[in-house]
Amino acid sequence: MRTLMVELGERSYPIYIGSGLLNDLGSYLQKHGITTKNSLLLVTDDNIAPLYLEKTLHTLQQSGYRVVTSIVNAGEKAKSLSVFENVMTAAIEGGLDRNSAVLALGGGVVGDLAGFVAASYMRGIRFVQIPTTILAHDSSVGGKVAVNHPLAKNMIGAFHQPVMVLYDVDTLQTLPMREVKAGYSEMIKHGLIWDEAFAEWCLNQAESLLALNREDLAYGLERGCAIKAAVVSEDERENGLRAILNLGHTIGHAIEAVGGYGEFLHGEAISIGMMGSALLAVKRGRDQSIYTRTKQLFGRFGLPTSLPKHLDTEALIHALLHDKKFKDNKIVFVLPVAIGKVDIVTDITLDEVREVIEQLKEEA
Amino acid sequence: MRTLMVELGERSYPIYIGSGLLNDLGSYLQKHGITTKNSLLLVTDDNIAPLYLEKTLHTLQQSGYRVVTSIVNAGEKAKSLSVFENVMTAAIEGGLDRNSAVLALGGGVVGDLAGFVAASYMRGIRFVQIPTTILAHDSSVGGKVAVNHPLAKNMIGAFHQPVMVLYDVDTLQTLPMREVKAGYSEMIKHGLIWDEAFAEWCLNQAESLLALNREDLAYGLERGCAIKAAVVSEDERENGLRAILNLGHTIGHAIEAVGGYGEFLHGEAISIGMMGSALLAVKRGRDQSIYTRTKQLFGRFGLPTSLPKHLDTEALIHALLHDKKFKDNKIVFVLPVAIGKVDIVTDITLDEVREVIEQLKEEA
Repeated sequence: MRTLMVELGERSYPIYIGSGLLNDLGSYLQKHGITTKNSLLLVTDDNIAPLYLEKTLHTLQQSGYRVVTSIVNAGEKAKSLSVFENVMTAAIEGGLDRNSAVLALGGGVVGDLAGFVAASYMRGIRFVQIPTTILAHDSSVGGKVAVNHPLAKNMIGAFHQPVMVLYDVDTLQTLPMREVKAGYSEMIKHGLIWDEAFAEWCLNQAESLLALNREDLAYGLERGCAIKAAVVSEDERENGLRAILNLGHTIGHAIEAVGGYGEFLHGEAISIGMMGSALLAVKRGRDQSIYTRTKQLFGRFGLPTSLPKHLDTEALIHALLHDKKFKDNKIVFVLPVAIGKVDIVTDITLDEVREVIEQLKEEA
Repeated sequence: MRTLMVELGERSYPIYIGSGLLNDLGSYLQKHGITTKNSLLLVTDDNIAPLYLEKTLHTLQQSGYRVVTSIVNAGEKAKSLSVFENVMTAAIEGGLDRNSAVLALGGGVVGDLAGFVAASYMRGIRFVQIPTTILAHDSSVGGKVAVNHPLAKNMIGAFHQPVMVLYDVDTLQTLPMREVKAGYSEMIKHGLIWDEAFAEWCLNQAESLLALNREDLAYGLERGCAIKAAVVSEDERENGLRAILNLGHTIGHAIEAVGGYGEFLHGEAISIGMMGSALLAVKRGRDQSIYTRTKQLFGRFGLPTSLPKHLDTEALIHALLHDKKFKDNKIVFVLPVAIGKVDIVTDITLDEVREVIEQLKEEA
């Protein structure tokens, strides 16, 4: 079992990563001062519930906990204010009080929704993340929780750190292959922005990681979380450094939006986005190897490295204009300086982005 | 002009109290780093809008601010998630970004709603309170913001401190007399829990305060805010001391609930509630003068000191049982020890409360 501390002063918390941890959920909760005196709310979705709900409830009840469950529909639509209100209803009817905790059993959507419930129920109660996807290694660090507004993603939320994250790698074994691949996209990103050696390790272990080897998976998750934690510890509320985590996300978000949030998984979209950032960097004079090595890395994981031709360039540009990072006809972009190091560049023009988009299409 | 600092470390903020301050709103915003580069959202209600909206917008526009306005229906019903979502829509459509601010122009309801919008828009932007009621001197200190859930009041919220509070006593001159009286109830409470001399001052200046004498009003608001600030500074998130601010609120909330949140104003209900606490204290052996002096104080302000006979005792007890402070057939109560000093008592039985309720009815 690996333990990683996210250092955030009095809001510091551990991430436990290993096999079989879910069986000991009760003792982990007790270790963190969550006693059986107070009801718990467990939030999950209807994909995860058939796989792990019964087991989780059983282990909690064995430990003497009273648990209320709220099962939401799988998918991004659960991050709405109306689902949020329903989960709140479950919390109130279940008699949760100030000393209760909300547990999120699932991927990023469940974590974001349940986290915002925990952040605002009675003005904030404790929150525990139990991620069941690889991608969630990213969202479980940093305390960003939110629901969507019909007009914009993640517009309504809070910074609310969990008291602990319990990452049972056994739950990842049931992930569909496409989600496995897409999950590694953020892990690779953490190598690209911070740690060349880790990027190299990902490349070399690709086969083992895709086969969900527990040892390599646990190490990869730990290192990915550690890099994100290092960034977040320095800039919890995104005033500066934290922006480097957006590598590939500006173009990536546009791809997700133009694809109607269904054609591309988040990890796929940002994989293409990171290829775009590499191209932009090379155009701005950085070494060509940044592009070729990035491409090799994503290619090894079966992730897309080019843009399907049917995506309309102007639609992508239009989506970019809605991005929070757009200002005075210039866009703020995170660009690689080398593998393992990035820079924040504030003067990228729309024409440069248009050119890169066209080039990404030619690669297809 | 009086300035009072609420000391909360890096979240400290000033309360400006005086006549004519609204005319200088723009300079106060600038002084606090809210520049004209970023749109503002002004939230108010349809009672206040006809009186002060035009003037406020005019002064903001004179100072070069772009302002989006959201006018909600006056009254507690505005503290719902659906109104919250509408205000969020206005913020998004108005192009508010991370450096924008939300301004609350109104009483406690507008402050609570707009404050929760500020707390959660893009995970938190700046918040400015411009209270237009006497009662809001209480809610503008301490950072508690919230909306209601259909099942319970203030259940969904956050702690989000404003960057400043601008209290223009001129806006209080248009308050209906009943609201003026009820507004003083929390001010008197601050004397009762903390400062005998201030309670005496309130008693002696009652006539002048009810006549809205600007000088006395400004001093009373300042001292009331200062007492609340002192309590909140020691216990921002209500882990202990802050509970003393609930004097009169346990019975008071029950009275509001049984009255259907319409028969009694909050200030009226807690005035009766504080009479109940005084009676309980005397029953538990405290000096009889606590009761007579409390009664004299509220009487001087034309506030109710007894319970209308038509309120059903068992309905009140039932409402109490829903209170967060109820546990194992015992209730946590804030009880006076003397005028200006209270204690938190954890073993009040339902029978004792029943007796006090009956006694409050006999006084009617």
